[in-house]
Amino acid sequence: MPEKLKNLPGFRDFYPETCAERNYLFAKWRAIASRYGFLEYEGPVLEPTELYTRKSGEEITQQLFCFEDKGERDVSLRPELTPTLARMAAARQRDYKKPLRWFSIGPFFRYEKPQKGRGREFYQFNADILGEPSPAADAELIALSIDLMLSLGFTREDFVLRLSDRHTWDRFIAENAMDPERSQEFLAIIDKWEREHTDATAKKLEGFGTTVDAIQSFMDAPHAISDNLKEVQADLEARGLADYAEVDLAVVRGLAYYTGTVYEVFDIAKSMRAVAGGGRYDGLLKLIGGAEMPATGFAMGDVVITDLIKETAQAERQLSDYLSTYGALDVYVIIADEAHRTDALGAVQKLRASGCRVDYPLAPMKVAKQFQAAEHMKARATVLFGEEYPELKIKDLAKREEQTVSESQLPAAVRDIVQSDEIGPMLA
Amino acid sequence: MPEKLKNLPGFRDFYPETCAERNYLFAKWRAIASRYGFLEYEGPVLEPTELYTRKSGEEITQQLFCFEDKGERDVSLRPELTPTLARMAAARQRDYKKPLRWFSIGPFFRYEKPQKGRGREFYQFNADILGEPSPAADAELIALSIDLMLSLGFTREDFVLRLSDRHTWDRFIAENAMDPERSQEFLAIIDKWEREHTDATAKKLEGFGTTVDAIQSFMDAPHAISDNLKEVQADLEARGLADYAEVDLAVVRGLAYYTGTVYEVFDIAKSMRAVAGGGRYDGLLKLIGGAEMPATGFAMGDVVITDLIKETAQAERQLSDYLSTYGALDVYVIIADEAHRTDALGAVQKLRASGCRVDYPLAPMKVAKQFQAAEHMKARATVLFGEEYPELKIKDLAKREEQTVSESQLPAAVRDIVQSDEIGPMLA
Repeated sequence: MPEKLKNLPGFRDFYPETCAERNYLFAKWRAIASRYGFLEYEGPVLEPTELYTRKSGEEITQQLFCFEDKGERDVSLRPELTPTLARMAAARQRDYKKPLRWFSIGPFFRYEKPQKGRGREFYQFNADILGEPSPAADAELIALSIDLMLSLGFTREDFVLRLSDRHTWDRFIAENAMDPERSQEFLAIIDKWEREHTDATAKKLEGFGTTVDAIQSFMDAPHAISDNLKEVQADLEARGLADYAEVDLAVVRGLAYYTGTVYEVFDIAKSMRAVAGGGRYDGLLKLIGGAEMPATGFAMGDVVITDLIKETAQAERQLSDYLSTYGALDVYVIIADEAHRTDALGAVQKLRASGCRVDYPLAPMKVAKQFQAAEHMKARATVLFGEEYPELKIKDLAKREEQTVSESQLPAAVRDIVQSDEIGPMLA
Repeated sequence: MPEKLKNLPGFRDFYPETCAERNYLFAKWRAIASRYGFLEYEGPVLEPTELYTRKSGEEITQQLFCFEDKGERDVSLRPELTPTLARMAAARQRDYKKPLRWFSIGPFFRYEKPQKGRGREFYQFNADILGEPSPAADAELIALSIDLMLSLGFTREDFVLRLSDRHTWDRFIAENAMDPERSQEFLAIIDKWEREHTDATAKKLEGFGTTVDAIQSFMDAPHAISDNLKEVQADLEARGLADYAEVDLAVVRGLAYYTGTVYEVFDIAKSMRAVAGGGRYDGLLKLIGGAEMPATGFAMGDVVITDLIKETAQAERQLSDYLSTYGALDVYVIIADEAHRTDALGAVQKLRASGCRVDYPLAPMKVAKQFQAAEHMKARATVLFGEEYPELKIKDLAKREEQTVSESQLPAAVRDIVQSDEIGPMLA
């Protein structure tokens, strides 16, 4: 017998019960993006590798899922969407009214050693505003990210949004006469500020003309809150969302293209874990597509947030509620007498044509087994085709009530039962 | 200035207006799958190349988007979902009640010269029934594929489902004492039957011990309709769908794993174009995952069907109706007096919290421009924050009616306007 085939390391199979959890998250992402007036777009899963190396340099290829295609092109499975968006928006900047509010949901990839919370593929939600330079656009995306967390059932006890500004660090770098070429290297040290031992940080800072203490004082100083961040805070205050955000300059975000406001949503219980983040990248459209357009964006992956949902009681309860009716049938058609299979098939098709979700036994099966199947598939009702045909027994499985109807009365009788629920089935 | 970056040949950018068309198709795929009681699943976009070569041999790698990853694995961007499904279902066959009804929607890839209707990536809908050997399962999927076409606005004038049976050809191959090893090669000739010149077909048939005439007579003979196909036809008849299907043995489907019933949905106007197809593949789960499980499936890609929708008046009208309210806002908040921006932001956030889709100007803008933006974004209503604050003017943009409300009355007033529409905004 041939060896059983398996999936690749770091890649996931979404069986229906896992796909349901994914779809819950997708539905929330879509619902919030829609409330904020964002339109969906999508780019290719595969892009020229240069799209990612142009800003960040060749080192980034270490984590890229990159390879040479049959046409000898250097290509990469996309690690993120921002460079694609920059390319797309720059190419057709004149076709759209500014500001653009665009969102996307899709698969992303990286080539790293798979570990808990980090596989080789993941889904990501991206929301971006293009064409608006003011902090109002950053605040709008920050509000969106807070609303997203709230809609998933999280509270201020569970998360905080840490707000920072790359401009503030640019000023620090200039004031300390550091080599601007090495600013990315310096910011990488700040990025690890809380996760790394002070001695290690101090050692890395040698050669940058500054110290751990100097940086700590700079971050704690009141003037560290830039006018830009003050505007963001005032905007959030007007929305009643100010409490969800805290200025914390230790957040700088790893990506080289950020230019202004940056932020990360952290979970409080395991405070080192960022579940989402974003920021302003005003230079990227020019670099990639030759168009001058300010831009700011936000992204959330599916892996950490799904873990967090399952660890947080209220969020988990909300997910369970969704799953309890997910993929539920309206009617299961029971064929108690095979002589009436043909009649039953006709009814199945009519019920479906009226919009009902219907299943039935493909092969002859004992009636008790069919009722079990109906329960298993969360059917709201059963219709029984038996010896009494053309009389049909219709049963409300929630209320345990039964009535007898004719075939012509069937669709209306089913509709009455299904609509008597406040919560209908949801297959997102 | 650096060169502008482009996407790879054969890959598509989905700008919002194209993504809307894609989402229309996705929504129809989901709705029909749901009516048929199917549950969604998904597999990895990247798989070991052997998953595709095990049944079909190494020749298939010519069209595969395959490469060697950094770990020196032979991997492929998936060209189809059936082998992944076979792997997944076989691995967990004991965890699910049979029959399984599973569907999926996702991206697929092939490495071919890009041409009209065939890029290097496409989306595909897959629906499969696993664990049921009877023709009833094939008929259920055939009914699903017909219902899908009807739900897209097509009629019997626009499409026909051509039904065939691999068993019938197996019998022909045996009766003509052909080498069973060469049956795939022989079926490839039948697959091109209608597209290729008779002389070319005749030449290819040399060495198979048969002729064009012999094959034509075989296909036309009444006994060519197998008992299996008769059962499928009777089942469709019971559903009132028999007229949509015609037996046509020239349909064999290219893939090596099919074992019984096979079919393709053809558009009638350009009759050489298949828009969808499927069939039974009873041996694949054993070959790939070591599990004995009968299986039958159906797939439709996004490219040809989208072309066909746009070429067919009724189907195109239905798409246009969907697009006319796609991504529409409920309310655009107009800030006529910047002194009230803070108040307006508070209202924006309250309206969103009540479930409304809301946009507003991120930067100061002339009032006339703001009304234009509201129309452009298909807003159902506007709310104006001006000198009259705390009085607010709310305007129904469809009925051109205006009223004055207080802030506390605002959410209810907006709800009244939005719910007065029969057709609400749809962001699928």
